[in-house]
Amino acid sequence: TDKPFGVNLITMHPQLTDLIEVCGRHGIGHVVLAGGIPPKGSVEAIKGFGAKVLVFAPTLALAKKLLRSGGDALVIEGMEAGGHIGPVSTSVLAQEMLPELHEDYLVFVAGGIGRGEAIAGYLEMGAVGVQLGTRFACATESIAHPDFKKAFFRASAREAVASVQVDPRLPVIPVRALKNKGTEHFTAKQREVAGLLDSESLEMAEAQLQIEHYWAGALRRAVIDGDVENGSLMAGQSVGMVKAEEPVADIIAELMSESEAALARR
Amino acid sequence: TDKPFGVNLITMHPQLTDLIEVCGRHGIGHVVLAGGIPPKGSVEAIKGFGAKVLVFAPTLALAKKLLRSGGDALVIEGMEAGGHIGPVSTSVLAQEMLPELHEDYLVFVAGGIGRGEAIAGYLEMGAVGVQLGTRFACATESIAHPDFKKAFFRASAREAVASVQVDPRLPVIPVRALKNKGTEHFTAKQREVAGLLDSESLEMAEAQLQIEHYWAGALRRAVIDGDVENGSLMAGQSVGMVKAEEPVADIIAELMSESEAALARR
Repeated sequence: TDKPFGVNLITMHPQLTDLIEVCGRHGIGHVVLAGGIPPKGSVEAIKGFGAKVLVFAPTLALAKKLLRSGGDALVIEGMEAGGHIGPVSTSVLAQEMLPELHEDYLVFVAGGIGRGEAIAGYLEMGAVGVQLGTRFACATESIAHPDFKKAFFRASAREAVASVQVDPRLPVIPVRALKNKGTEHFTAKQREVAGLLDSESLEMAEAQLQIEHYWAGALRRAVIDGDVENGSLMAGQSVGMVKAEEPVADIIAELMSESEAALARR
Repeated sequence: TDKPFGVNLITMHPQLTDLIEVCGRHGIGHVVLAGGIPPKGSVEAIKGFGAKVLVFAPTLALAKKLLRSGGDALVIEGMEAGGHIGPVSTSVLAQEMLPELHEDYLVFVAGGIGRGEAIAGYLEMGAVGVQLGTRFACATESIAHPDFKKAFFRASAREAVASVQVDPRLPVIPVRALKNKGTEHFTAKQREVAGLLDSESLEMAEAQLQIEHYWAGALRRAVIDGDVENGSLMAGQSVGMVKAEEPVADIIAELMSESEAALARR
């Protein structure tokens, strides 16, 4: 594309500094730092080449700290979202954060948004914008495998479930994805590894590594290879509102017209 | 009280018919049928003595069926709520249900509501009202134990967690409550019982019964006896917005003024 675009970087990436440098070389205008608290120096490095930095924060106190120390805007993302999630829902985060922040800072709301009425609602609570992922995952322009898209069209909200941690010794970062064979296997795997720990046939470090690596490459297997049984079909709860393959322009037009109608009714 | 009031009945109660009859004898004006699909005849029995019936429904199809077959109003309750919950968040249910239902039916929204801005938002999406529990649990008028109230004032949204099912053979109906020792013990208990099943030292029926009965009486232990370590501190994610003991009238006045301010800004 020759249009401006942003880049989403995962804060825990071991080469985060290098990735930021690449963004700088290509004159990226916006960088989103997702997945955790930005490590020291990362916000400054991005602002150093003139880009805007968007940060995530799970609590009000941390949000204020990040915004005061250079973040240009905040994204609050509820547990309805697809992929890696926190424990609190979008509407609760919005109630806790927007009244406190919206007068002084730019706040975007994300998680579970599939219709324009919800966009209008968050804008009126003080958000400057919203972030939607699931709604666009199956757009005509998306390179996702046809079987991945079919799974989305068929799924309802209740099938987009957060992964469950079975044993306190084996940490699992919750990921929301469509239920499939992989979900069941993952639970069974955790019970199996916990059993091996109980019988002392496995070291703790190796056990935790087996759980941590279980889903490695699984998103790619689902999205690109179309393995909808064993791959990770990351999806937000708005997946029930995704019913057919549509061009991005049509999706945006529909969201805008729903928002406008909602605002006009008031 | 000599004011009108409603009664909330659990649909799976074995004596539901008798309870409905008691409501009839006392001229109750509104009955809420919660916790599942109303059994045959229950809606008719309530309407028989002139009361209005409010029903819960987890999906759009079921909501339409219940409203067409006599339900006077629908409550959609998201997984942010305290106590027994479904899997889908309030804002997602609102997007799926309100646009389809609000022109023909009366719909109330519940789950995770702690501020007037959210009330205004759902009303503008087409709800006729909202249902709040957590926000009122620690009111001055509430008979909850002082230690229960203190636990609420201290808690943040992320501490109100849904109970987790560890083993596919041992069903757990998710309940949202504040994390405490009881939460940890319950997970350990499930693993212990699953282990006994594996080693065939326990019958399946007895195993499931042990899990089902684990929390029996636990809400009363928390709310009335003040056992905040082992009781069930049922709380919605709005618990982080409950900060002090206030009279019900003050809570309602605050919610109304936040709603009005939100609507006036538009």
